[in-house]
Amino acid sequence: MARAFEKRLLPGSVSLIVQSGMLSAGFLVDIMSHGVMGVSKVCSIGNKLDIDESDVLSYLIHDPKSLVIGCYLESIVRGQLFIDLCRRSPKPIVVLKGGRTGKGAQAAWSHTASLAGNHEIIRGALAQAGVIEVKDFKELMDVCRTLASAPPVLPKSRPNIAVLTFSGGAGIVFSDFIEESGMAVAELSPETKEKIGRLFPEWMPVGNPVDLFPALEKNRSAGLLVVHEALKAVLADPQVDGIMVHLFAASFRGPIPFEELATQVKAAGKPVCIWLLGERDEVFKIQNEGRIHGIPTFVEIGRAVECMAAIFKNARYRLDCCVSTQPE
Amino acid sequence: MARAFEKRLLPGSVSLIVQSGMLSAGFLVDIMSHGVMGVSKVCSIGNKLDIDESDVLSYLIHDPKSLVIGCYLESIVRGQLFIDLCRRSPKPIVVLKGGRTGKGAQAAWSHTASLAGNHEIIRGALAQAGVIEVKDFKELMDVCRTLASAPPVLPKSRPNIAVLTFSGGAGIVFSDFIEESGMAVAELSPETKEKIGRLFPEWMPVGNPVDLFPALEKNRSAGLLVVHEALKAVLADPQVDGIMVHLFAASFRGPIPFEELATQVKAAGKPVCIWLLGERDEVFKIQNEGRIHGIPTFVEIGRAVECMAAIFKNARYRLDCCVSTQPE
Repeated sequence: MARAFEKRLLPGSVSLIVQSGMLSAGFLVDIMSHGVMGVSKVCSIGNKLDIDESDVLSYLIHDPKSLVIGCYLESIVRGQLFIDLCRRSPKPIVVLKGGRTGKGAQAAWSHTASLAGNHEIIRGALAQAGVIEVKDFKELMDVCRTLASAPPVLPKSRPNIAVLTFSGGAGIVFSDFIEESGMAVAELSPETKEKIGRLFPEWMPVGNPVDLFPALEKNRSAGLLVVHEALKAVLADPQVDGIMVHLFAASFRGPIPFEELATQVKAAGKPVCIWLLGERDEVFKIQNEGRIHGIPTFVEIGRAVECMAAIFKNARYRLDCCVSTQPE
Repeated sequence: MARAFEKRLLPGSVSLIVQSGMLSAGFLVDIMSHGVMGVSKVCSIGNKLDIDESDVLSYLIHDPKSLVIGCYLESIVRGQLFIDLCRRSPKPIVVLKGGRTGKGAQAAWSHTASLAGNHEIIRGALAQAGVIEVKDFKELMDVCRTLASAPPVLPKSRPNIAVLTFSGGAGIVFSDFIEESGMAVAELSPETKEKIGRLFPEWMPVGNPVDLFPALEKNRSAGLLVVHEALKAVLADPQVDGIMVHLFAASFRGPIPFEELATQVKAAGKPVCIWLLGERDEVFKIQNEGRIHGIPTFVEIGRAVECMAAIFKNARYRLDCCVSTQPE
């Protein structure tokens, strides 16, 4: 096991508090060898004989190397303290709480002797404390790594999202997920439409989702320049808060100039999530480049949209938190 | 593009009707190069100038090489006919309907001039016709490939699921998803508990989820024999309808004897879904072996449970369908 760890360990700013040996060992081998996330610290607290999640959370909140804290918990033993810590945390906290159902709670009891508690009450308390709740292990990692790479955003109750895609179908599925997540499909400004329109064939109107396929066909020799130009336009649009980009990774298409793309994104300070498809090895390369350049990639549209929504959900809460917690 | 196709094309029994060039080209490169699914036929019907989804559906229902039919649709133009075909189909049909929301419908209009329709009504009609509805592209493929490899099962309103895992935490998350999906965490029979108990250290009671970690520690020299023995026991248990298995793929652990495992599963005729974690290259190997041997593998617990639930949902409907559609 040690060998596998050494070979793949990626440094990062996500730290984890987990009540599961698997999550602090086997699962880390998985996420590391798939190149999706780097970690700072992982603490497995088992059945909490001497320390519990609140002790570790308090430490991680003060640890300068931990920017996002993810938790897998089977119980929350000092509930009031834990919720207080979450509420005042300047850092995002993501929680997967095992034992939401009767049978899950029973399994938690036999695993770590944890009393899982009434999940409706826990859900409400976590939400009020600005915690982002998830249901699955990879989802926990996906939301954490997204929050770790996101730029600071202004809180908005209904952020406007632009979609750049090569597929009309994907644009539709993106739109459905965006609307269902409580975000909005952005209305692009006239300037943006005009800039993108230059890339388009005449018969194609510019809308959002931006379906770049006809533009790609029209500018075949320009390669992925159309993506750059369209991305530049939506990044500059004051009516756009975040951008979903669909990329297709294929050896026959030439490399995606990731560094330039990342430079654009960083300068604009808007969150960008990539839905990445394509050939296995090429996907792996882009995934790694995305991680290095702080642009998260995803293999499912639904998850990509969920993670974008988490960025704004967290921002909304953290601002409320700073406004309401005046010096005491 | 052709080269990528040739290199990776996998034969299979899933056929697709799609209203998206991406799904009949780019996305197929992705699922093929990742080794997750083989396909028989794919038909992209665009804006349906001369044929529509009902024409193709009718063809695929009669095509002996297509065992499962997956659809990505932006509209359903001859609604009554389509629903009738689905209702009488002896084969499972899985539908991703784009344009569930206002903005999604608007995007569908600009993509293929499709009138997406009122999704509440469509959802109800699809459900009554035994169609399994999904929301994302990979989810469409995951449900299709699972149904393509599943043995025929007896319909049960609340199927009982056994979970074999190496992680107490995973067992809990499995239990939560199983209960939330409308299935049940199986009560194992006394015989099964006794058989599995022989593998366990004395201090460990046998429950479901079956946490095999202590058994693995106790029988270190036996490698994955404990998984085989436990699997044999739950496959033989009349109180168990389906089994979720957690496997960890790692070079340091030696190969998983997949052929033996698949032989056991085939003989028992019960559906088994594997949640697969581990080192990237090893995961890829096992994923491919799983596909070849007809045991689907998944990288998320939630998706694995959803796909297991789809098997029983489909069986429940197909029997109702056969019972109620006497010769006309």
